Amino acid sequence: MNIRERLSKLRELMAEKEIDMYIIPTADFHQSEYVGEYFKARKFMTGFSGSAGTAVVTKEKAYLWTDGRYFIQAAKQIEGTTVELMKMREPGVPTIEEFLEENLPENGTIGFDGRVVSMGEGIGYEKIAEEKQGRVVYAYDLVDLFWEDRPKLSEEPAFALDVKYAGESTADKLVRIRKFMSENGASAHVLTTLDDICWTLNLRGNDIDFFPMVLSYAIITMDEMALYIDERKLDSDIKESFAKDGITIHPYNDIYEDIKKLKEEETVLLDESKINYAIYKNIPEGIQKVEKRNPEILFKAVKNSVEIENIRKAQIKDSVAHIRFMKWLKENVGKIKITEMSASDKLDEFRVQMGNFIRPSFEPISAYGEHAALCHYTSSEESDVELKEGNVFLTDTGAGFYEGSTDITRTYALGEIPKVMKEHFTLVAISNLQLASAKFLRGCNGMNVDILARKPFWDRGINFNHGTGHGVGYLLNIHEGPTNFRWQYRKNDTHPFEEGIVITDEPGIYIEGSHGVRLENELLVTEWQKNEYGDFLCFEPITYVPMDLDAVLPEMMSEEEKRLLNEYHALVYEKTAPYLEEEEKEWLKKYTRAI
Amino acid sequence: MNIRERLSKLRELMAEKEIDMYIIPTADFHQSEYVGEYFKARKFMTGFSGSAGTAVVTKEKAYLWTDGRYFIQAAKQIEGTTVELMKMREPGVPTIEEFLEENLPENGTIGFDGRVVSMGEGIGYEKIAEEKQGRVVYAYDLVDLFWEDRPKLSEEPAFALDVKYAGESTADKLVRIRKFMSENGASAHVLTTLDDICWTLNLRGNDIDFFPMVLSYAIITMDEMALYIDERKLDSDIKESFAKDGITIHPYNDIYEDIKKLKEEETVLLDESKINYAIYKNIPEGIQKVEKRNPEILFKAVKNSVEIENIRKAQIKDSVAHIRFMKWLKENVGKIKITEMSASDKLDEFRVQMGNFIRPSFEPISAYGEHAALCHYTSSEESDVELKEGNVFLTDTGAGFYEGSTDITRTYALGEIPKVMKEHFTLVAISNLQLASAKFLRGCNGMNVDILARKPFWDRGINFNHGTGHGVGYLLNIHEGPTNFRWQYRKNDTHPFEEGIVITDEPGIYIEGSHGVRLENELLVTEWQKNEYGDFLCFEPITYVPMDLDAVLPEMMSEEEKRLLNEYHALVYEKTAPYLEEEEKEWLKKYTRAI
Repeated sequence: MNIRERLSKLRELMAEKEIDMYIIPTADFHQSEYVGEYFKARKFMTGFSGSAGTAVVTKEKAYLWTDGRYFIQAAKQIEGTTVELMKMREPGVPTIEEFLEENLPENGTIGFDGRVVSMGEGIGYEKIAEEKQGRVVYAYDLVDLFWEDRPKLSEEPAFALDVKYAGESTADKLVRIRKFMSENGASAHVLTTLDDICWTLNLRGNDIDFFPMVLSYAIITMDEMALYIDERKLDSDIKESFAKDGITIHPYNDIYEDIKKLKEEETVLLDESKINYAIYKNIPEGIQKVEKRNPEILFKAVKNSVEIENIRKAQIKDSVAHIRFMKWLKENVGKIKITEMSASDKLDEFRVQMGNFIRPSFEPISAYGEHAALCHYTSSEESDVELKEGNVFLTDTGAGFYEGSTDITRTYALGEIPKVMKEHFTLVAISNLQLASAKFLRGCNGMNVDILARKPFWDRGINFNHGTGHGVGYLLNIHEGPTNFRWQYRKNDTHPFEEGIVITDEPGIYIEGSHGVRLENELLVTEWQKNEYGDFLCFEPITYVPMDLDAVLPEMMSEEEKRLLNEYHALVYEKTAPYLEEEEKEWLKKYTRAI
Repeated sequence: MNIRERLSKLRELMAEKEIDMYIIPTADFHQSEYVGEYFKARKFMTGFSGSAGTAVVTKEKAYLWTDGRYFIQAAKQIEGTTVELMKMREPGVPTIEEFLEENLPENGTIGFDGRVVSMGEGIGYEKIAEEKQGRVVYAYDLVDLFWEDRPKLSEEPAFALDVKYAGESTADKLVRIRKFMSENGASAHVLTTLDDICWTLNLRGNDIDFFPMVLSYAIITMDEMALYIDERKLDSDIKESFAKDGITIHPYNDIYEDIKKLKEEETVLLDESKINYAIYKNIPEGIQKVEKRNPEILFKAVKNSVEIENIRKAQIKDSVAHIRFMKWLKENVGKIKITEMSASDKLDEFRVQMGNFIRPSFEPISAYGEHAALCHYTSSEESDVELKEGNVFLTDTGAGFYEGSTDITRTYALGEIPKVMKEHFTLVAISNLQLASAKFLRGCNGMNVDILARKPFWDRGINFNHGTGHGVGYLLNIHEGPTNFRWQYRKNDTHPFEEGIVITDEPGIYIEGSHGVRLENELLVTEWQKNEYGDFLCFEPITYVPMDLDAVLPEMMSEEEKRLLNEYHALVYEKTAPYLEEEEKEWLKKYTRAI
């Protein structure tokens, strides 16, 4: 069946169900950042393989919305399929909502699988339909009905994360969650986010790309945790331990029926920004709801002392791997053939050597020269280029060790690079160091301190168009709430810092068609001092890789900034030298020398 | 009648009205920062004359809540009155709400004049009463019934602020207000805040302390503005002009009855954080409400070009007066007797000489040595001390000129001062200059940039326990929303900066029992540059008075910080020299020299 045939088949089914427009987003049932193969229905229906896009199929036409990163690729991939490309955010191109508003006929019906649409989006579609005296139909995954060779839902085994890594037992975590529930008057708590569930269960798996999590839902009550999961993923040890903790196992998709049976006297704690539309619609109307951010979000963001100890080990491992990679790169560029992809493989090779490596912690960015100016660049067979002297190489990658996930970006000068690149590198280094050195009162959040990273840019009339940093999960999502570094206020995502939160510090500069520089360290929020003026926190950098001195212009830096860089480099040497060979140490001394 | 007799009289009336506890706050009907004599009922009932305090009278007892500034004074003033002092925020002392909760009997009644209690407070009292199956009674000003020599409500004449000062006619302002109303679906708009009304009407007066405003309310509809005001305050020119603009005049207190007559089809725009409880309760129940911040708040915060031109003139006048004062102080301290109060008078003398001076723009702070460590110090006959060499003198004062209001703080070294004071002075200067030099993207608010002022403090484990700055009104309130510099988020008071907003920059340090330093400049928000990275704003300092170089330690400053101070001092000289005598210029050259 080719794309045209698939579209006709879908239209037949739409006609049967009296659906005028059918929406196929790129999402799983859990609003995960990456999705597994089973969930790539939009790719199946349009041929477009990029990571972001939404298809809308009407009786006569089919449309694909995607963003600027993918205009060229999408256009190529949908050629001849009758699918039309809708270039997001280009002038004159309607949003999906605007398109639905304009094109839905009176009394029309919008269809979608309610499990892959968030509550907020679903309510938006409802409103659009209501304005036309129409309705939404969310109960059918129409594509599934004729997708014959659809990849199975992942059946990969799950594994327990030992308490020596997790630092807190599931039983203890459930006590905290239930305490929060009762403090908020809730008798039940619906969880659909994989990281919240995996954190609670000390469970990991292999069901979605990159993040080692397990497809599941849960309903936590005061004496039970009903877990909806493919039982075959769990070995007998895990099941036994679950039984002891009052965790019962139910078929994955049964939650949609079970949630309809919630009793009227229940008060349900749920996070409306996290649940899908079908779950939301299936909660019986009379049920009292407590709308709160999932308590697990803050619980897991604040790492416990065992996790912190492990994270420090993971960071040292990853730093040592990076230092070896940096040395290899500096010594071999221009001598042997190195490409973006082979460099990325080499870095992972060094990581694997460190032991306890599970997998990359997110989709790696390995970008040379002008590719480094694209924030979301992914090298592929087609785009891969050779690394040559005279420009920079940017690597933004991470490792999942049992001791935790890492996320680090370095930009390296290959040979001698132009002065403007050094200026940009120095600017980014100053920005990174200034933010990392912040001291602040308890109660401050990312909005308060973000300007310390942006000031060196803003003072020059420059800006980088992305957040300065994000929380980092422990073998969970690499982008983890509820803290971040941004200057914009976001109601649910601007939480004050607390000791034990791990957050990235990653300013950058991007010169289209030429080069890009980003430097990313992870920071641990730490108590600094309590005195008569207040209770102060600070950041401790826990990533220990040199900022390439071949690309630093000392004359651009104030004495204070040089001091910050020198202190950081002394720390890099101190933390990693014990794990290095003599020759590596000698090399590292040069790249961590005081300037 | 002494205080005891007044309390008995009040209790008689409370019994008559079946009121168990009667609350007397310090407020007028408009939630003004300063109140007129008529409104000082709490002082009348307790004998305590401080600016902040609330009395609660029960059947047997009477209590006065006030804060740390006033513990000593209040204790002295209420001696022998039977009134008991409740020291706010001291351990074990209940808040007023806690006290009411504990002491209101079942089915009890809380009484207060609903016009001097904000909507929020009134609703709080309602809830406390409801929990005891009781009620609130808000319709009586019981004190008024026996306060025989009560000062009259101010009958001071109002005056029109010419368009050459205001920059925009009332007719044009009403067009903008009505546009906002219709965009928000409102047909009526209730205004109770004096500054919003006076701004709309280009009217000023003399009804409350310091801020030149007129007691009034207004209801704006699409074709009328009903103004509730003592008509005798308006001359025939003003009345004529009002008539032309569709402004009708009604007795001041008639609003409470008129608002009950709002028709059901009306939709009323109001700012719930600004109206009093009586107004709120008198709005008929069926009326649709649009709860929005008063549009006048942003309109008046963004100064128009005429206002800005005037403000610049006012700032230069005030700066010249300050420079003359500084010279006089430096040349005469230790030679003639100068006290806090005589110094303050001298400064005002120099201001009056500049012409077009109306009055001080707020309650002046004129503080020597340890007094300067008290943020809210007011010198009085009893506290007044002589200024001597070896410590600092802090003056935080302002002038209301027709060309606008000023607010400026300077701290001066008297003779040679200890090194620690110089360190503190230098720290405050760095903080002030760093914030003033901020460049930032449109969309940023005070939370984003506040850390630029606090970083020099926080890096040393120090903090100052007040906001870093506030918006400034044009012959209106000196503290004007909706922008400010703080690190804490406040929903209604954290507005992004816009060109034309005037805001103060006033960090400080306070060493109890020794000294205090604060330096305050006003800043004008200004367009900086628009480029491919975004739309940048910056601040322009519009206060031009030296930061006393006798108290600066250059070795504490970075090169960048010295550059900022030198640039500021060059600006001070450039802006003020044209208005100075030769001898004054010579003197100023020394105090604005580059370091």
